[in-house]
Amino acid sequence: MLTVAELAAAATRLAGRVEHTPIVAVGSTGLLAKCENLQRSGSFKIRGATNAVLGLGPAAVVTASSGNHGLAVASAAREAGIPATVVMTTETEPFKRAAVEAAGARVVFTAPGSDVRNRTAAELAEAEGATLIPPYDHPLVMAGQGTIGLEIVAQVPDVATVVVPVGGGGLISGIASAVRAGEGAHIRVLGVEPAAGDDTVRSLRAGHRVHIEPPRTICDGAAVQSPGELTFPILAALVDEVIAVTDAEVIAAMRVLFAAGLVVEPTGALAVAGALALGLGAGTVCVLSGRNVSPEAFAGYIGTP
Amino acid sequence: MLTVAELAAAATRLAGRVEHTPIVAVGSTGLLAKCENLQRSGSFKIRGATNAVLGLGPAAVVTASSGNHGLAVASAAREAGIPATVVMTTETEPFKRAAVEAAGARVVFTAPGSDVRNRTAAELAEAEGATLIPPYDHPLVMAGQGTIGLEIVAQVPDVATVVVPVGGGGLISGIASAVRAGEGAHIRVLGVEPAAGDDTVRSLRAGHRVHIEPPRTICDGAAVQSPGELTFPILAALVDEVIAVTDAEVIAAMRVLFAAGLVVEPTGALAVAGALALGLGAGTVCVLSGRNVSPEAFAGYIGTP
Repeated sequence: MLTVAELAAAATRLAGRVEHTPIVAVGSTGLLAKCENLQRSGSFKIRGATNAVLGLGPAAVVTASSGNHGLAVASAAREAGIPATVVMTTETEPFKRAAVEAAGARVVFTAPGSDVRNRTAAELAEAEGATLIPPYDHPLVMAGQGTIGLEIVAQVPDVATVVVPVGGGGLISGIASAVRAGEGAHIRVLGVEPAAGDDTVRSLRAGHRVHIEPPRTICDGAAVQSPGELTFPILAALVDEVIAVTDAEVIAAMRVLFAAGLVVEPTGALAVAGALALGLGAGTVCVLSGRNVSPEAFAGYIGTP
Repeated sequence: MLTVAELAAAATRLAGRVEHTPIVAVGSTGLLAKCENLQRSGSFKIRGATNAVLGLGPAAVVTASSGNHGLAVASAAREAGIPATVVMTTETEPFKRAAVEAAGARVVFTAPGSDVRNRTAAELAEAEGATLIPPYDHPLVMAGQGTIGLEIVAQVPDVATVVVPVGGGGLISGIASAVRAGEGAHIRVLGVEPAAGDDTVRSLRAGHRVHIEPPRTICDGAAVQSPGELTFPILAALVDEVIAVTDAEVIAAMRVLFAAGLVVEPTGALAVAGALALGLGAGTVCVLSGRNVSPEAFAGYIGTP
């Protein structure tokens, strides 16, 4: 479990280094959005990455990522003046690959799948004596993402439900630890993952971590093969429910958010897609995880009837 | 001139009725955005409309609008439980016409041009004994828009320059009155209008209100034929400079804002287009006036190389 002290230390490290993102109404749905799509580096990942880079000290860093975590580590490392290597699969969105390279990181490619990607990063860190910053399975990473939960309860004191996208589980385990601590024990925390990558739904049903084939979904940020070793027990203990939504529901949610003035990438619309599927409204905060999508892809999602 | 008392009264009327919109970084440009694209009804116009509807008392209202002001008056009137009529030209974007009708207002159409549109609304109000709410030339409308300026100086205490889109001048006259009062006398206020609708640039050069043909520009919200009778003297006294930008520069700014996670309509990107043209960066707040654009049109603006 993450402690209040770990979350508070993360909040202190991140103060002034990441955006305190706004809460915005999602049109007339009654839903509120926590806008990590307006975060530095384009996603919430900069929180965990910065907390880990600063917390682990001044060594070269290596990470594995579908894109946003790699971009965040590259950005955080550049801020700290240390070299970064990002391991991505050959299926990584070219748009995200270009952003990681533009942020000054070395990029190493592997075959598709989060398993081989994570293993390659671990081996590379070992071989080069660099510090491994996992995309979710690390207390400093989870605590960094958890600062979003601290902000939500401060910004929306009467929040009843928080809805969070689920990939490896770093975001939701951090947020659940933050919002359900102390006075927030009654707040519901719900997770949403893509139907084609429902490893967490299956794992919760099975009572242990289930492993699936590399998922095929437009939600690249949530296309992992199993929940994390550290994140899963926290998620299982603190999250009320995890549901899965289709890519079509995700696109519909991207259009609702567009009409509300917000650009999100597919993974960033998961929480709103889930909240709409569950019929949620007032009292609900949906976490928009990121905005990193190419203009051409975004135009295709929203511009076709 | 607008007084501090008029601005303060507007702020009191609007408290809890409109969003206190966030300030967001525009990617790595150094620019900050005041996000009225995240405002209720999709634009800043809800501020002036609500202030006028509440300030003028409980009578049926009539207005003339290119879209956003009409939508705002329709929304404010519905909130107040009174009927609203919106006069639009036959060139009004179908997307905005549909939104006004969905908000419960009667829509009356006239030939293209802001002149005939404004005249028709005045005649209709006279004939029906309804209250006319002009799109910009009214102290309550200007004061409502001016509350944006009060928020900017509170949110960004060290702001050096505020950049504002210019149509009829209601937004910039309100904001200039608010930010340059008292301690803010040193803050620069710049206006930006579309090159094809540069009535204000020409008017300032001539030293009096100049009248142009109905402008052809994608910035429908700033396609007016002359500055307002009440707004122009305030603008001339308090605004440091007004520049014009091309539609191509506006589209480039829409893409910069998209990459920062924000949806704006063309008129809503004028301030960023102007700030980029002037080479401005840190210390600059750009007002994003609105988000009301169809997904098909937006996809066309950002999705084509």
